[in-house]
Amino acid sequence: MRHGVILAGGGGTRLWPASRRTNPKQFLSLGTGQSSLLAATAARLAPICSEQLWVVTAADQAPLVQEALPTLPSGRIIAEPAARNTAAALGLAAVHLLHQDPKAVMAAIPSDQHIGNQEEFLRVIDLAFSAAEIHEAIVTVGIVPTRPETGYGYLKVGDGVSGELRHIDAFVEKPDEATAEMYIASGDYLWNGGMFFTTAARLLQEIREHMPETGKGLDAIAAALGTERAQAVCDSLYPTLPKISIDYGVMERISGVMTIGGDFGWNDVGSWPALADYKEADENGNVTLGTVVAHEATGNIVVSDEGTIVALAGVSDLVVVRSGDAVLILPRNRSQDVKTLVDALRAGNLEDFL
Amino acid sequence: MRHGVILAGGGGTRLWPASRRTNPKQFLSLGTGQSSLLAATAARLAPICSEQLWVVTAADQAPLVQEALPTLPSGRIIAEPAARNTAAALGLAAVHLLHQDPKAVMAAIPSDQHIGNQEEFLRVIDLAFSAAEIHEAIVTVGIVPTRPETGYGYLKVGDGVSGELRHIDAFVEKPDEATAEMYIASGDYLWNGGMFFTTAARLLQEIREHMPETGKGLDAIAAALGTERAQAVCDSLYPTLPKISIDYGVMERISGVMTIGGDFGWNDVGSWPALADYKEADENGNVTLGTVVAHEATGNIVVSDEGTIVALAGVSDLVVVRSGDAVLILPRNRSQDVKTLVDALRAGNLEDFL
Repeated sequence: MRHGVILAGGGGTRLWPASRRTNPKQFLSLGTGQSSLLAATAARLAPICSEQLWVVTAADQAPLVQEALPTLPSGRIIAEPAARNTAAALGLAAVHLLHQDPKAVMAAIPSDQHIGNQEEFLRVIDLAFSAAEIHEAIVTVGIVPTRPETGYGYLKVGDGVSGELRHIDAFVEKPDEATAEMYIASGDYLWNGGMFFTTAARLLQEIREHMPETGKGLDAIAAALGTERAQAVCDSLYPTLPKISIDYGVMERISGVMTIGGDFGWNDVGSWPALADYKEADENGNVTLGTVVAHEATGNIVVSDEGTIVALAGVSDLVVVRSGDAVLILPRNRSQDVKTLVDALRAGNLEDFL
Repeated sequence: MRHGVILAGGGGTRLWPASRRTNPKQFLSLGTGQSSLLAATAARLAPICSEQLWVVTAADQAPLVQEALPTLPSGRIIAEPAARNTAAALGLAAVHLLHQDPKAVMAAIPSDQHIGNQEEFLRVIDLAFSAAEIHEAIVTVGIVPTRPETGYGYLKVGDGVSGELRHIDAFVEKPDEATAEMYIASGDYLWNGGMFFTTAARLLQEIREHMPETGKGLDAIAAALGTERAQAVCDSLYPTLPKISIDYGVMERISGVMTIGGDFGWNDVGSWPALADYKEADENGNVTLGTVVAHEATGNIVVSDEGTIVALAGVSDLVVVRSGDAVLILPRNRSQDVKTLVDALRAGNLEDFL
């Protein structure tokens, strides 16, 4: 059966101050027109696997997940006792899926992305599920790149398998600018959007082979599942698993991974300027969320909380975000400085604002 | 006896969003190191007339005055039933003073200014009181100008009377830039800081002569004072008085007004950039109030509420103010645009933010 596994355990400070430790990005609406990115992701997968939807999240975020997805049965929220990165998280999901359904096929989908074209997304997802079922392969959905982005990993695409399905030659790390431009020009690369499809059994088998420590821990957790020791075993073993991403731990080490290119208005909302990619600017080029009053101000990205206002005059190309007890201001082309400011807050004993 | 009359009825939007309809400038601390400008003004006058201190304010601001000056007897708060500008307000104060003290000499002092040199201020104030007593004159304290400011009215100084006391040749309106420069170069002009000294009887006599309608109204209010009709008479008559400033209604129409130049670090905190005049900048030229984190940001004026933070990177020479439910951002040299934004809020049905 087809299962959707939404990865919702992230923290993420690139969208500070809206994204906080206690309310990270996936729980924010961010002008997508949805109540939250997570709810939008769940709604998006509903036509394919609404009955088999799972969310993997950090234990302390489980209440937020339940709040964002009030109709999700609580048993479908897989709470990680500690953050151990995506290999362990998806392995844990696979363990739970197999316990219910030995033939489970899973889609691993990040919770914190925006998709512009739902119809095309569903078409590609359906293809990817089918490919994972037919070829018993691990199938990624890569994103057809629209610019030489240096902030993403890439998939180097190889020979065709059939139809839109192709082999992957390599997973490649975030490139420098020249390399990214070469990738785009070649037409042989897709962005790694972190979406892939596989049988749960195959995923666990690859983990056992390439990450034996993780595999052993997950097998012990699986053995206890359904018993009254289940939670205790998970709580004691899971936090000891290596912190490794699924890409690094599995994908990059195995051959035979396939991909389908997706061109459906994907946006990872990875920084404040990303809002301008999917939210229309007004006649002065300002992209705004919430109540904003602007006078002779152009090209700004301005975000205000409900019931609050941001008023600006005579400024251009700034990011201005007011969220809760914090305000962020920086030039639109320096959005990476959010990280510097977040580090400064940590260094300045101001973590309570994070 | 010497009485201090603090004028605290103003609204003022130039310091929005800190200054609001319900909490105007005089109730703000604004980095002066005092709990509020009003409290600082009262404390400043205490050595000369602490026993005879009065505050004239709008009726709906009386509770704020009492909160700012908890030890002020409530009978010393003169509440205007409606805002009728300074001639009526000071006339009303004079009526109250005379009712207590037929020989009252009053200092009219704005509540919303910052004074850097308290000692020199007191010396000049003492001189001005003495001059008002000795010469039975109206004596203003003008401010020795430090720049060709176009935002203030000026006093054209004439012949000397004695010591530092000089005659005023004319009250002049806010000049244009060239005129202001000429004023400064001549050395014959002082800023009109709105401070003056007179016997209460003389002030009322001038009002009767030059503003007969106001004079008649005030005389009727005075006649009822001490009776149980007092409040009712004031409530019915005061709102009908003409809305005229004391400068326009009296000062500019009479001769014999004297002045003393005051050079005591006067600042009317008339706009956000004024903060930089009395509050030291950090090593990057940023003047900050509250919790601010700045990275590669220079020359900014940044204000944050208690318990909140403003974080900025890569921006220069901006005014950034977060206060309550609003955030203001504009270039430091465009602080007059606050007014435009406030007008835009009104036009946009967003008065609740004012």
